[in-house]
Amino acid sequence: MRNRRVEIIAVEGIPEIEEAMDLGEIIVNAVRKMGLELRDRDIIVVSHIIVSKAEGRIVNLSDIKPSEFAKNIAEESDKDPRHIELVLRESKRIVRMRRGLIISETVNRLICANAGVDLSNAGTGRAAMLPLDPDDSARKIRNRIKELANVDVAVIISDTHGRPLRNGAVNIAIGCSGLEPLLDRRGEVDMYGRVLTSKVICVADELASAAELVIGQADEKTPVAIIRGYMYNPSETPAKVIPRREEDDLFL
Amino acid sequence: MRNRRVEIIAVEGIPEIEEAMDLGEIIVNAVRKMGLELRDRDIIVVSHIIVSKAEGRIVNLSDIKPSEFAKNIAEESDKDPRHIELVLRESKRIVRMRRGLIISETVNRLICANAGVDLSNAGTGRAAMLPLDPDDSARKIRNRIKELANVDVAVIISDTHGRPLRNGAVNIAIGCSGLEPLLDRRGEVDMYGRVLTSKVICVADELASAAELVIGQADEKTPVAIIRGYMYNPSETPAKVIPRREEDDLFL
Repeated sequence: MRNRRVEIIAVEGIPEIEEAMDLGEIIVNAVRKMGLELRDRDIIVVSHIIVSKAEGRIVNLSDIKPSEFAKNIAEESDKDPRHIELVLRESKRIVRMRRGLIISETVNRLICANAGVDLSNAGTGRAAMLPLDPDDSARKIRNRIKELANVDVAVIISDTHGRPLRNGAVNIAIGCSGLEPLLDRRGEVDMYGRVLTSKVICVADELASAAELVIGQADEKTPVAIIRGYMYNPSETPAKVIPRREEDDLFL
Repeated sequence: MRNRRVEIIAVEGIPEIEEAMDLGEIIVNAVRKMGLELRDRDIIVVSHIIVSKAEGRIVNLSDIKPSEFAKNIAEESDKDPRHIELVLRESKRIVRMRRGLIISETVNRLICANAGVDLSNAGTGRAAMLPLDPDDSARKIRNRIKELANVDVAVIISDTHGRPLRNGAVNIAIGCSGLEPLLDRRGEVDMYGRVLTSKVICVADELASAAELVIGQADEKTPVAIIRGYMYNPSETPAKVIPRREEDDLFL
């Protein structure tokens, strides 16, 4: 059964996150302080920036020594060579390079701009890299919430990504735990009884995009949202099944 | 100011849509029958299938005479040559063809599978094409709602599209009226005061994806959703600004 009403609730009062902080506990406490309780089947969407911070994936740019290649790129594009160096370190393959923008494949098989290395919201003179294993990050937060609040939630780690074909970035799921990221509707019938043959929906990305409606991007003081009322399929499938294998990608 | 809580409400009781039906009136009446009232700044997301039906963009496959080219493609792929013929008629350019799947650029500059021609939910032996001008469709529904219910809403026409790079389709905005589809956050500052330089968010697509959480896809008896509580920027900018110009697409 599909749901009739879904709520997206911004979680207020998340403090500034530093390395080794317990995000599960922080989320449980913040929700309680709002006078709410987490419920079974809530979906907790967490912006990757606070996960990166909690996992120590922040570096001081002053500690980075750019390679010659990074300096060459930076010179062409008027960018900070130390930022470029970090982008290269986080990449396993460059997909495109133009006007100082680097599209690369990260060690996590995401194809995105700047390998997800972000200067925004990282702190002055610092850069944030993506979590090393965002599915694992999601699972840990989910388990910790279960431990502390005794509720079965699903967790999505989100990031804002540019896309081929369409202008404007959207939030996508780079990690998840507890819900099936891809909803396979093949075999269901339409309103006339015709069997669907090719409908697979990426609900994890749709949920991440929905959460962005309350998660501020500049003002990362709201890095967490609760989505309530969406009947997902419980599953241990990770978000790493979402990136297409290159040979299956008919668009490229 | 960003919102703290956003609701996505499925609109129940939309009847089977036929050509020339008044979607604005049908939506206003359906919402009233649910005991709700539309409010200023509600966003109404309408699945394109009912727009296609109301605008007569449905054909009987038995009326279609496939070209030789369509027959050749169909033979290779075990598809209905009349369906292929329609896909070709709706396309102005083939981007990729493999295993019976055609990625093409439609007359509306959307790059998508099968030029958006859908056999699902169109009726037995029928196919649905995309609305000819989805931005205009959205504007008409919006104006009609204003006329009948005296509320200023925004309207999005949505469709489910596959994507490059990522498995699983998501709902996107193929038409809109009344809201700025691309939210330009450049110039805003992050939590440390650093000015954002490259954040443009496609809120129209994020809203369409959010609506999909209540809009069933097989069961098109729920083809309309209300999104309430999201503070969009009012605008007359159409959704046709969303597709990237090919020369600007660094991903491809």
